Amino acid sequence: MAEEIQSVIWQDGVVRLLDQTALPRREVWLECSRVEEVARAIAEMRVRGAPAIGLAAAYGIALTAVHTDCREASALLPVAEEAGRLLRSTRPTAANLAWAIERMLARVRAVQMLSPEDAVAAIVREAQSIAQENEAANRRMAQLGQALLSQKATVLTHCNTGALATGAYGTALGVIRAAFEQGKEIHVLVGETRPFLQGARLTVWELQRWGIPCTLITDGMAGHFMQRGRVDAVIVGADRIAANGDLANKIGTYSLAVLAFAHGIPFYAVAPTSTLDLSLPDGSHIPLEERDPREVTHFEGHAIAPRGTVAAYPAFDVTPYRYVTAIITERGIARAPYEESLRRLLEEA
Amino acid sequence: MAEEIQSVIWQDGVVRLLDQTALPRREVWLECSRVEEVARAIAEMRVRGAPAIGLAAAYGIALTAVHTDCREASALLPVAEEAGRLLRSTRPTAANLAWAIERMLARVRAVQMLSPEDAVAAIVREAQSIAQENEAANRRMAQLGQALLSQKATVLTHCNTGALATGAYGTALGVIRAAFEQGKEIHVLVGETRPFLQGARLTVWELQRWGIPCTLITDGMAGHFMQRGRVDAVIVGADRIAANGDLANKIGTYSLAVLAFAHGIPFYAVAPTSTLDLSLPDGSHIPLEERDPREVTHFEGHAIAPRGTVAAYPAFDVTPYRYVTAIITERGIARAPYEESLRRLLEEA
Repeated sequence: MAEEIQSVIWQDGVVRLLDQTALPRREVWLECSRVEEVARAIAEMRVRGAPAIGLAAAYGIALTAVHTDCREASALLPVAEEAGRLLRSTRPTAANLAWAIERMLARVRAVQMLSPEDAVAAIVREAQSIAQENEAANRRMAQLGQALLSQKATVLTHCNTGALATGAYGTALGVIRAAFEQGKEIHVLVGETRPFLQGARLTVWELQRWGIPCTLITDGMAGHFMQRGRVDAVIVGADRIAANGDLANKIGTYSLAVLAFAHGIPFYAVAPTSTLDLSLPDGSHIPLEERDPREVTHFEGHAIAPRGTVAAYPAFDVTPYRYVTAIITERGIARAPYEESLRRLLEEA
Repeated sequence: MAEEIQSVIWQDGVVRLLDQTALPRREVWLECSRVEEVARAIAEMRVRGAPAIGLAAAYGIALTAVHTDCREASALLPVAEEAGRLLRSTRPTAANLAWAIERMLARVRAVQMLSPEDAVAAIVREAQSIAQENEAANRRMAQLGQALLSQKATVLTHCNTGALATGAYGTALGVIRAAFEQGKEIHVLVGETRPFLQGARLTVWELQRWGIPCTLITDGMAGHFMQRGRVDAVIVGADRIAANGDLANKIGTYSLAVLAFAHGIPFYAVAPTSTLDLSLPDGSHIPLEERDPREVTHFEGHAIAPRGTVAAYPAFDVTPYRYVTAIITERGIARAPYEESLRRLLEEA
């Protein structure tokens, strides 16, 4: 059994982040004692994956509580709110980031009458609760989702949705891992996920640690392998899911969803309910991050295109609900019509 | 007006090839005086693109004639046949390679009664004729194809199909260039084309020289841009076209064709008739090259995936005829049903 990967750790008033830009070559740990360091790590994608950045942000707010010298707990609130604004500005698409910040700020508001020591302890505990609930949610989704896979299946996945992306276990990759741990004969086709290469660098690294057989492919090969009958299911994560089931996920996901649909292959999204944003009626309202096109024209600082190349880097795309066979959450599996099924999952809480 | 790019040149008994693995960083010319050098350059993709490798192979056979010391022209045939076998073994998919070799061998057979000097001159002239006809075919296809584009159009292309790939002017990129030269407002979305990055390295380089506006995208972004209404046509080349219109082209083409179809966007293939292989009833008979998976796991010798990563590199895929809006050749534009339209184009010759 491989050692569990934890990518976001709280340790004695410091947030430790496994730098995902250095993997797989080097395992570098960033130690953040200030929320600005956490925010920069999120913006630079040193910590990435919707649930993991939510968790990092929660710990970022806990950092402000731990390091604010105050005589009244109420003094923690403006500092935490300022931290929340900073953290929220780092990346616009993932719903989990705003969700975690809101939850932490609610806790900071709720402890204003406590002693500063008790308030700080409660705020840190809240972030730790998010981490624990997140891990439990990951394991629950994985169990629910793995039941959808056959005894023998080749699964295509995109980007990275393992423990690195979620803090523990994984969402889409968690489903794959649970199926493998159940003894199912699983083979994973890993889309490399240009431009950041989360698939090639991170997903293969996690699958290797778990001993799950996988084959790395370029993103353009997906249709070919589907055409040849070599894909039984497509499983991805999500960064934000609107009320009608439209979902934002890493750029390239939409192409995979259309291709899966054209080949009659099920397309599953796996995400905790903190990824749901039922305030948005559909995917057209999800803010999609544009990142620096230099990530397309350069690889590790090394130019791959001619000088002066204009490039585009929309970091996410939106997959309409009609291409989504099911959305797997820790509270159950939602299917169309998603307006009803997603709302029901939240109401049952 | 930019200087014309010529990637395959015959000069005083030497074949000069612009090394496409070194572009865009450096312009390196390979000088081949032996057919083995030409064969290696094809196998290593220093010269690539179906028409260009056909042309390089023709010159490769001309090299054997020039450098064989003989008293009878008939002595040239076994040497040329041996060269043909070597050249044909380099890459299996492109029809133009076998076509050029066959045409050259037919010429070698036809000149057996001439003096050695006259025979050699005729063989070299045959290769030069292939080059001239190829350029004329490129320009003719470009004119026919550009008429299909609107006055203002954003065109998505894949891989590289410019002068580098064809020896002169280009096939799909020739259509784009001709439309631009006609004064049409053309913007090109260039798919980077992993793993070899022909789009990022070569197509952008050619478009920049011609002054045609373009934006580089990763292959996984294609669906997103189509969804946003930002693609008016997809234009690609082809490496082999079967009798029913099924066509092999660079890996990733099939995904684009399915995506274009799903969005109601026309999908055009542009190829000279030397790319047609009507001996094959459909695409399932086209041999698809598998290349070294190291090209997926490494970039310029630098690992991008963890040690021990298993990868796949099918270098081509097959797009079924039903996704192909039209096939543009130098003899005219073929549309479904392709069995009839393609055969008619060849018969009219």
